[in-house]
Amino acid sequence: MAACCGAVRGFLFEYDTPRIVLIRSRKVGLINRAVQLAILAYVIGWVFLWEKGYQETDSVVSSVTTKVKGVTMTNTSTLGTRIWDVADYVIPPQEKNAVFIMTNVIFTLNQSQGHCPELPDDNTECNNNSSCVPGYVSTHSNGIQTGACIPYNSSIKTCEVFAWCPLSSYPVLALLVGVFFPMGRNILPTFSSTYLKNCIYDAQTDPFCPIFRLGKIVEAAGQNFQEMAVEGGVMGLQINWNCNLDRAASHCVPKYSFRRLDNKDSANTVSPGYNFRFAKYYKDSSGIETRTLIKAYGIRLDIIVFGKAGKFDVIPTMINIGSGLALFGVATVLCDIVVLYCMKKRYYYREKKYKYVEDYELGTSETYGTDS
Amino acid sequence: MAACCGAVRGFLFEYDTPRIVLIRSRKVGLINRAVQLAILAYVIGWVFLWEKGYQETDSVVSSVTTKVKGVTMTNTSTLGTRIWDVADYVIPPQEKNAVFIMTNVIFTLNQSQGHCPELPDDNTECNNNSSCVPGYVSTHSNGIQTGACIPYNSSIKTCEVFAWCPLSSYPVLALLVGVFFPMGRNILPTFSSTYLKNCIYDAQTDPFCPIFRLGKIVEAAGQNFQEMAVEGGVMGLQINWNCNLDRAASHCVPKYSFRRLDNKDSANTVSPGYNFRFAKYYKDSSGIETRTLIKAYGIRLDIIVFGKAGKFDVIPTMINIGSGLALFGVATVLCDIVVLYCMKKRYYYREKKYKYVEDYELGTSETYGTDS
Amino acid sequence: MAACCGAVRGFLFEYDTPRIVLIRSRKVGLINRAVQLAILAYVIGWVFLWEKGYQETDSVVSSVTTKVKGVTMTNTSTLGTRIWDVADYVIPPQEKNAVFIMTNVIFTLNQSQGHCPELPDDNTECNNNSSCVPGYVSTHSNGIQTGACIPYNSSIKTCEVFAWCPLSSYPVLALLVGVFFPMGRNILPTFSSTYLKNCIYDAQTDPFCPIFRLGKIVEAAGQNFQEMAVEGGVMGLQINWNCNLDRAASHCVPKYSFRRLDNKDSANTVSPGYNFRFAKYYKDSSGIETRTLIKAYGIRLDIIVFGKAGKFDVIPTMINIGSGLALFGVATVLCDIVVLYCMKKRYYYREKKYKYVEDYELGTSETYGTDS
Repeated sequence: MAACCGAVRGFLFEYDTPRIVLIRSRKVGLINRAVQLAILAYVIGWVFLWEKGYQETDSVVSSVTTKVKGVTMTNTSTLGTRIWDVADYVIPPQEKNAVFIMTNVIFTLNQSQGHCPELPDDNTECNNNSSCVPGYVSTHSNGIQTGACIPYNSSIKTCEVFAWCPLSSYPVLALLVGVFFPMGRNILPTFSSTYLKNCIYDAQTDPFCPIFRLGKIVEAAGQNFQEMAVEGGVMGLQINWNCNLDRAASHCVPKYSFRRLDNKDSANTVSPGYNFRFAKYYKDSSGIETRTLIKAYGIRLDIIVFGKAGKFDVIPTMINIGSGLALFGVATVLCDIVVLYCMKKRYYYREKKYKYVEDYELGTSETYGTDS
Repeated sequence: MAACCGAVRGFLFEYDTPRIVLIRSRKVGLINRAVQLAILAYVIGWVFLWEKGYQETDSVVSSVTTKVKGVTMTNTSTLGTRIWDVADYVIPPQEKNAVFIMTNVIFTLNQSQGHCPELPDDNTECNNNSSCVPGYVSTHSNGIQTGACIPYNSSIKTCEVFAWCPLSSYPVLALLVGVFFPMGRNILPTFSSTYLKNCIYDAQTDPFCPIFRLGKIVEAAGQNFQEMAVEGGVMGLQINWNCNLDRAASHCVPKYSFRRLDNKDSANTVSPGYNFRFAKYYKDSSGIETRTLIKAYGIRLDIIVFGKAGKFDVIPTMINIGSGLALFGVATVLCDIVVLYCMKKRYYYREKKYKYVEDYELGTSETYGTDS
Repeated sequence: MAACCGAVRGFLFEYDTPRIVLIRSRKVGLINRAVQLAILAYVIGWVFLWEKGYQETDSVVSSVTTKVKGVTMTNTSTLGTRIWDVADYVIPPQEKNAVFIMTNVIFTLNQSQGHCPELPDDNTECNNNSSCVPGYVSTHSNGIQTGACIPYNSSIKTCEVFAWCPLSSYPVLALLVGVFFPMGRNILPTFSSTYLKNCIYDAQTDPFCPIFRLGKIVEAAGQNFQEMAVEGGVMGLQINWNCNLDRAASHCVPKYSFRRLDNKDSANTVSPGYNFRFAKYYKDSSGIETRTLIKAYGIRLDIIVFGKAGKFDVIPTMINIGSGLALFGVATVLCDIVVLYCMKKRYYYREKKYKYVEDYELGTSETYGTDS
């Protein structure tokens, strides 16, 4: 009981601190302080000030709404003069964090379910019915083969298919050059409502305006808009919010940047550009369903919101302070190496730093050194 | 060779530990233990127990499917009595992690490509053809100007445009109050199938039911549903999974929370609310294409799945233990400052702690102190 | 002034290093080295080599484009023989990082707005008008009740509703077995263009081919494709890029994996499978709008791109080095416990390690120990 009390008293009322050898040496002293200074500069300058190691970062929850505006006109022999507005060229009409703007289109008018010759290629051209397999369908087929070989035009015969017929397609080029799209959010409270209604984004003059010209986005990413409008493509509109929540909210402004996300290089892709097929369905007066097949080429804008909001937090601060303190030990290790292995008077210093204790029953407690 | 052997033996069979001054002082002892206790409490209590510093967190991969149910009716002079069901008001019919429910709509019926007067505003009103520029198109145009100035109504003349005509629009208000939507997943295994078919989410009584009333979601976010249904808006339905994988899976339940994601304040936005245009295309008996233009206002629900799943992991544990140990050094540094600089007997303690070693050739090894 | 100068000189030109007791003991020496070796192995082997603790990881920005190919045919009494191609079964025609492929469908043809009997269930069957409430609409209603009770067929009467009529539905099964879809990106530069046009993904033989068979994806996730095609479901196609940017870019290849994301178990879900309703709208020659209601069952493929790109970075390296160094202190603490509490000669060692200093005015500096 008394022993226990003594142990507790010892635990509470005693303080142990390492015994220190203080070496008065210019060389070692300066090396030590220089290494400590470098570590301190790294911890305070780099970790804390530059990388804000005292902050816990959190990613941003964000929702972006987009709106597209603009009309354009095409003049082709198949369709005549035709006007295109938002309801015609944005497909689907609303999407989350993305918008597709059709810039080129291939129409196949008045298709209905029936039998017709397949489009000619190496596998579908034929001389007689034996080349065509009933029920055959491949990855590139437009329909299911019936087994007959019928004339595609005056010179070529192809296998007959059951499909949405006719298959022939007439291209229509509908370059939409002047499409604008304002984004409903990401608006800075410092801007007036009239500015926001009339500005157009420009990296130099209006870097915070949320209204973009499609052509400028493509060019800002270093792409050719005319080329991309014909073939289609995927553009990324990156919005970067790097907010320091320890400072005022008005410093928290978005940065816009643009880049092409799809693989432009046609040699390395399965299908270069970006296109898809959809159809508009009609019923004629006799109730038979026809459709207009539309192969839409265009630019898909993926809106990618990055964002880290940093705020002071105890744990990363303490982790960085703790590992910074541990790094201070490196200064002592380095200087000890200099003192004990590199200096002329190393044996003298070793004597002072170390006290040698032998484990042998008969050994004397001090053998090599004459510590004190 | 023998020297080398000796070095290896020395390395393996010797153990060096710092020499310690043990100071029997109530004051310093208590300060030391108090600081150590605070650090220990921080490391164990805060870092390990509260913030679960021994866990590596991973974000959740999740897919949410939604289903909307409900019918509603409108009665307007233009369209007469009309019923709206899911196929009419969910656009597009399926979306990944989002669903748009149309709550208000402006119809423009029987549009076909042709010439008609532009809707009047400051830029389109005109007195004669010289005010209208053929081919002119601005951001807000509905078509391309032909250069003619024609009567819009009995009192106003506007520039003629080639567009989907007529441009005039009739509003139809279709408030959908009773829309429900169950989400296919996020179902807790503890609930019975009959409960899940009949429950409706309520923050107090049914916090885990995955069936929501649209109106309740909007109100839970502190918004006015009637207002939002007219203007449209974007709601975030946040699903929070904060799972501790070190415990049983049945503790891993989602928390639902709601907030408005778009900027309600109309002064600071390019376009307040949420709406978009799309069209339904028809062909009349003579083969001419007409369309019904629909400006859809509504509520887009973005379903945002958060989730951190924490699991015991060695590295964060060791980083936190390591930096915690390093922080213990702080106690020694603090107490040393007290002992060596603040106490009355500081010179006495310094003598005990330090052994002064001079670097001068002629200096004696001990000068100031009389370290035993 | 002179005192200040002396303090600065002392600070710069003095170096203090702990005094060490070097204990020549095989047992303790070996324990010490073993613990240090374990810590070193953990820090270097596990933290640095295995977990790449010297790298800062960043998540990948990626955009995936998909393209679906394939035709299929159905033969039903309602619709006759019918061919289905991409424009028919991909809804909506383009989506960001997802694609829905309709595999089963229930048609309701020639619906128009009007009055008809509700589909019979417990709530809608009636004997006379008093069972039906005008204006009543429930979660499962197809329309709004008019208050009349009318015959559904020769034996059953149900409440009349104002709805898109008729309500009865005819199922059409359209299993699409041979759907392929190539993804435009994720193409490795090492593959030839001809390989990419003809390969089909296989976990064993072609693990990097970006062209997939729908059936194979479903089976790779351990699901039954026939079952899933009838009921619908959500599949996750996970693309894993784990890139070490410190090495050559050609090592940075994607890994594909598949899993079912929706809850298959019908007992625990509100609605098992995945389906939604949409409509195709027509106008007949008299201008009355009719629609074909389509309940589409199918497989939604969510493309989920994971990716961590690790690159050497100073801060995580230093944090790991710092906390590694701090862990070395553990070896000293452990061995001190062994030396001072467990060994036979513990009192002897304590004497050597500790110098006891009393705080009492009259106490002598050394009481218990005879520290040299």
